[in-house]
Amino acid sequence: MKRILVQLDSDPHPSVFDQVVAYDSGAEQILSYGAVTAQNCTPLVHGAMFTRGPGDLKSTAIFIGGSKAADGEAILNQVKETLFSPLKVSVMLDSNGCNTTASAAVHCAARHVALKGVEAVVLGGTGPVGLRAAQILAAEGAKVRLASRQLPKAEAACSQIRQLVPGATISAAESGDDGLAATLDGAELIIAAGAAGVQFLTAEEWTAIDSLKVIIDLNAVPPLGLGGVELTDKATEREGVICYGALGVGGLKMKIHRKAVEQLFESNSQILDTFEIHKLGESLA
Amino acid sequence: MKRILVQLDSDPHPSVFDQVVAYDSGAEQILSYGAVTAQNCTPLVHGAMFTRGPGDLKSTAIFIGGSKAADGEAILNQVKETLFSPLKVSVMLDSNGCNTTASAAVHCAARHVALKGVEAVVLGGTGPVGLRAAQILAAEGAKVRLASRQLPKAEAACSQIRQLVPGATISAAESGDDGLAATLDGAELIIAAGAAGVQFLTAEEWTAIDSLKVIIDLNAVPPLGLGGVELTDKATEREGVICYGALGVGGLKMKIHRKAVEQLFESNSQILDTFEIHKLGESLA
Amino acid sequence: MKRILVQLDSDPHPSVFDQVVAYDSGAEQILSYGAVTAQNCTPLVHGAMFTRGPGDLKSTAIFIGGSKAADGEAILNQVKETLFSPLKVSVMLDSNGCNTTASAAVHCAARHVALKGVEAVVLGGTGPVGLRAAQILAAEGAKVRLASRQLPKAEAACSQIRQLVPGATISAAESGDDGLAATLDGAELIIAAGAAGVQFLTAEEWTAIDSLKVIIDLNAVPPLGLGGVELTDKATEREGVICYGALGVGGLKMKIHRKAVEQLFESNSQILDTFEIHKLGESLA
Repeated sequence: MKRILVQLDSDPHPSVFDQVVAYDSGAEQILSYGAVTAQNCTPLVHGAMFTRGPGDLKSTAIFIGGSKAADGEAILNQVKETLFSPLKVSVMLDSNGCNTTASAAVHCAARHVALKGVEAVVLGGTGPVGLRAAQILAAEGAKVRLASRQLPKAEAACSQIRQLVPGATISAAESGDDGLAATLDGAELIIAAGAAGVQFLTAEEWTAIDSLKVIIDLNAVPPLGLGGVELTDKATEREGVICYGALGVGGLKMKIHRKAVEQLFESNSQILDTFEIHKLGESLA
Repeated sequence: MKRILVQLDSDPHPSVFDQVVAYDSGAEQILSYGAVTAQNCTPLVHGAMFTRGPGDLKSTAIFIGGSKAADGEAILNQVKETLFSPLKVSVMLDSNGCNTTASAAVHCAARHVALKGVEAVVLGGTGPVGLRAAQILAAEGAKVRLASRQLPKAEAACSQIRQLVPGATISAAESGDDGLAATLDGAELIIAAGAAGVQFLTAEEWTAIDSLKVIIDLNAVPPLGLGGVELTDKATEREGVICYGALGVGGLKMKIHRKAVEQLFESNSQILDTFEIHKLGESLA
Repeated sequence: MKRILVQLDSDPHPSVFDQVVAYDSGAEQILSYGAVTAQNCTPLVHGAMFTRGPGDLKSTAIFIGGSKAADGEAILNQVKETLFSPLKVSVMLDSNGCNTTASAAVHCAARHVALKGVEAVVLGGTGPVGLRAAQILAAEGAKVRLASRQLPKAEAACSQIRQLVPGATISAAESGDDGLAATLDGAELIIAAGAAGVQFLTAEEWTAIDSLKVIIDLNAVPPLGLGGVELTDKATEREGVICYGALGVGGLKMKIHRKAVEQLFESNSQILDTFEIHKLGESLA
């Protein structure tokens, strides 16, 4: 029985990236769908559920992707509502690589600092990757400052994370010029997860933070989010600070992505979202 | 040479169900197309015809599906007009499972009653499955009453069947409250093939029919079409009547569906529509 | 690592023909995209580039197709702009079979006449196939008359070819009734590549050309472009002239198409457009 992956992608053209990675991870056939929404995905999920016996359903799985993480989350919610025992298939969400990238960034940081109690700043913390990085850091016991240019959005993101991570130590912070100095004061770890083209800090700015130990810039398109960091930095020491660029994190991100797809086919009732994907990265980091 | 199935589906998102079943039936690659119409399918059929030599064309086949059987029929007609010898490929129509479900239902009935001369009522007889069940029953020599809430639609369906089955014993009947008693009088077999949510008969109503031997309810979503029947009923005796629910018929439906796809690849000039699909189910029933 | 072909097709429904040929040429999985434009293809190309290491990228390739060659060219230009070393994948353009058909026609002609210095007329020379046939002939040293009913369009096509083939001997010519006699005067080779339904010459007209040695009619739908030629003519002598019909050229076209797809997977930085595809046909002709 072939391992079949049903790709539910919110974009008109479903991701080539996700398909190639899935084939390289052992999927034998991908049924690829674009323009998928929470409204139109139910018959596709039924088709995955009602075709094989419960004992064979681990060979069918669903991958949710697309450039917009919020759309992916809405699809995931609908998929979860549609599945019922024993006719379940495993599901993974990784819209725009949000879960695998956030997990890889945090695993990279953990090589150099103990996450429990670390003073962590996530710049671009309301975007799909930043929010998930903050969520994972909070779950690992870090003291997280989730920063955005718009404080109300940062506060909303913090509320969302507090629901997912009871007891989280997390606060909203400003990344605009006015509040930036306070946001960075005492930071040991900075993860920059902003949109392409947004530079948060110059090299002068971050080298001036005495407490800083590790910085990770997830922007892959120049200008990068943190001046002086190179795309290929991978635990590169600059001015006494450990630096990672997007490509330096990318190798681990790909390993996590591949392992997650492999794991989908090991049983038929997994939901691989942020925490589950981060956990399976532990043995790879 | 790989066994390639070209899926022509009238819905925007081509069926996951049909693809999984096809892979499980030995198709090696599916070229999957949604939003297919009789108007736009010709180049797709040409692509299937003009790429392999006549001796190899049995390894290419066409599957027509989608939620609307009438659209599938229009596509099938266009496909048949487009194919010519010796550059033919085999074709199967099973929009919304209409042919495989109708065939499975009739094969289930035939385990318990002789179809020739049996007094059969098809409720929801103008829908895709009901019409095909009535057509098969008529061809097997049953005395068929094709029932609908709208008598003129039932009469149109009977005319259509008489053209396909010369000498058919079939009459239109009412399933609304006024005519229902007459429709059911003397019935030995009832197949209910209505839309989801339509209950035709309560348990009290069908248990009151003394002549009744077998009832089959093809509705898979509660409330079922025949009160007292369970989804999983499979030759279950209730009040002296043999009962089948949708899941009870579903196993045979899947076997017929799989065998039909397998058979597509045995030669290059088959058209697998209602009768052909019913015939190949004989050895499975 | 599976050989993955990314099909970028400008039509809403990507070509079945191109997919079947690609599978028969050793592609192991096709990621098939329709409605692709120069504007929306970049993320798809990025997905092909950023998923495998440089040493493995020869197992990923891009095929550009669709019914409109100009759209395919625009996509090819965008793909070339997007690729960068070492993250390249090989690319083939064959919208509507334009390159493989033109190449096959010229290779057929070369079996019977020396192309260098031959007096060649291309009827329908401004269409995708005719223009490419003229381009290849010019590159092989033929004296080419590129004919169209609209002389300004023929002149524009000649200008385009002179840029691609420095030192080309090519001139625009009329295929309408007024200029046709002059266009054909002294012709040794005629390739007819017009639209379906356009007959350029009757049998009487071309048999009256004393200098004529070879005629090739690429129209596959009757009425053919050159009266008296049969679809299946393959080096058939008629009135002392070697004749080819569309099916007579088609076998070589298919061989070239298949070999081009095979070659895509031999290294990761090929661009297979008109000249490259013609060159790889040499060993097959």
